[in-house]
Amino acid sequence: MKQAILQMLIENQGEYVSGEQISKTLHVTRTAIWKQIKNLKQEGYEIDSSPRLGYRLLSRPDILKPEEIKIGLATEILGRELYVFEQVNSTNDLAKKKAAEGASHGTVVVADQQLSGRGRLGRPWASPPGTGLWFSVVLRPPLKPFLAPQLIFVSAVAVCHAIRDYTGLPVTIKWPNDILFSGKKVCGILTELSAEIDIINYVVIGIGINVNQEMADFPPELQEKAISLAVAGNTKYNRVGLLKAILKELEKEYEIYLTEGFPAVLKHWRSLTSTLGQEVMVSSTDETFTGVAEDINGEGCLLVRTEDGNVRSVMVGDVSLRGKEGHYL
Amino acid sequence: MKQAILQMLIENQGEYVSGEQISKTLHVTRTAIWKQIKNLKQEGYEIDSSPRLGYRLLSRPDILKPEEIKIGLATEILGRELYVFEQVNSTNDLAKKKAAEGASHGTVVVADQQLSGRGRLGRPWASPPGTGLWFSVVLRPPLKPFLAPQLIFVSAVAVCHAIRDYTGLPVTIKWPNDILFSGKKVCGILTELSAEIDIINYVVIGIGINVNQEMADFPPELQEKAISLAVAGNTKYNRVGLLKAILKELEKEYEIYLTEGFPAVLKHWRSLTSTLGQEVMVSSTDETFTGVAEDINGEGCLLVRTEDGNVRSVMVGDVSLRGKEGHYL
Repeated sequence: MKQAILQMLIENQGEYVSGEQISKTLHVTRTAIWKQIKNLKQEGYEIDSSPRLGYRLLSRPDILKPEEIKIGLATEILGRELYVFEQVNSTNDLAKKKAAEGASHGTVVVADQQLSGRGRLGRPWASPPGTGLWFSVVLRPPLKPFLAPQLIFVSAVAVCHAIRDYTGLPVTIKWPNDILFSGKKVCGILTELSAEIDIINYVVIGIGINVNQEMADFPPELQEKAISLAVAGNTKYNRVGLLKAILKELEKEYEIYLTEGFPAVLKHWRSLTSTLGQEVMVSSTDETFTGVAEDINGEGCLLVRTEDGNVRSVMVGDVSLRGKEGHYL
Repeated sequence: MKQAILQMLIENQGEYVSGEQISKTLHVTRTAIWKQIKNLKQEGYEIDSSPRLGYRLLSRPDILKPEEIKIGLATEILGRELYVFEQVNSTNDLAKKKAAEGASHGTVVVADQQLSGRGRLGRPWASPPGTGLWFSVVLRPPLKPFLAPQLIFVSAVAVCHAIRDYTGLPVTIKWPNDILFSGKKVCGILTELSAEIDIINYVVIGIGINVNQEMADFPPELQEKAISLAVAGNTKYNRVGLLKAILKELEKEYEIYLTEGFPAVLKHWRSLTSTLGQEVMVSSTDETFTGVAEDINGEGCLLVRTEDGNVRSVMVGDVSLRGKEGHYL
């Protein structure tokens, strides 16, 4: 019943809903309503009560709850199977476990805090509670495994679009799938694959976004490289709202990918990247070299022109952009 | 102590080892030895006892036990981390779980029976107790994920070699990695991959071999397509011995792959296949066509010349060979 009352208040957010109206619609007593309003207030919802006018929702807390995520979620598939936790070791690990147990295409695992969040190559990813958005999406794409890397472009485009729409901040994509604001990282994406040799069992896309951290929340060694959306925009953002915006964009871009193909995604990617034209340093397990990122090819490989004039195609590796101070970030 | 006594008997299999000798070597009483011999007999070891000459091991039971597998295992890495079960749902699923929890490169999971053994594409794989060899190997190859399919050729070569050496039967490889005797399947291999986009977390190679089944043990619908080594060779084979032979060959072929590269493996593969030169039917999710399997290319794709004279490269799909009666098996 609490959920139903909340839904009515949300649908009329900013306006009064009378106790009588709620009572009639939900067939509950005025006292029962009053009790649930009290519960909602305790959860952090700001609700104005007027004996004459009824109840008016003023603000919703930025808490990750299934109900908050499901209300107004404009997707057909993504997030319809949903797991929300206060604390997990890693949303990707949990999503992989759920997927191995049969979780459906589009399943989403969200946590307020990750105790051992990971970035690429097992690197730690700081995931403190209350400030960031840490979640993973299970996809079961009808693709051959060797095409799975194309999904990192799909997710980068979707996340970049969604952050731009939701915050108005001019974030960009760094090849292949980091999201930057003013050269600093606001979001990392870790894509993992489980496959037989010729079919994909599932793909898990883990998305970590620095939403409301203060600069002081970042460890010193990250302050030059990382930033939160809140610092970038000088305002706090609602994580649940951003999550829903991303899920919607991801569902949309994934659909475009399946129907129109990879070129359509690469076209979107090009329009959102800040990597092309930049001086970059490429590091792989074998070597490190510098050059100018000229373009990407049809497979998404970064084409880097080195000093000797040759163009090298980079399929995997870390790419650093040359910062304003002349060193690579 | 039982293990130590067994080891002494095995090292002298067929010859008597005196109670005095065992007693001196292991520092145990004659009565203690007698008790352990009794236990070993109960486990199925045939041991001849002579009051004057001592104990003589006549035969070892074909039971899957860690001790039996470890004695005489001629590998450096494969099987050194070893899990043996009477019954599991699927050795591949369990091996994936162990790998996700950190099991080392070379870990082996063996079961006497699989309750829900799987072949490719989730197809059921009959895995009754006592007769077959059902096991999975965890590898952590230093490869890019897109190269993982090459491991199916590595494992096919190793298994085919090992079965030939161990049984003397002229088994062959059907593209890409089934093992056939006289056109019927004696072994299937299911390779699964867990990866980030640019590094492999682990590969699990599941190997299922029909060793000692009678023809009547196979479900009717499989009797035209499947056969056991025992039926093929008209004798029973020791599953533990075969397992050790395969692990040794797999370790060897994997080493060749890493040091000499994929061409060396393909060369071995070509020498063991019965697919080339055959009329085949290729089935994929999209279509079915027939032709003659002419060759494989450097990536391991099957090259099939169709009736119109064109050559088609098959990367994935089911391939059936045209049987003696003219239909495809």
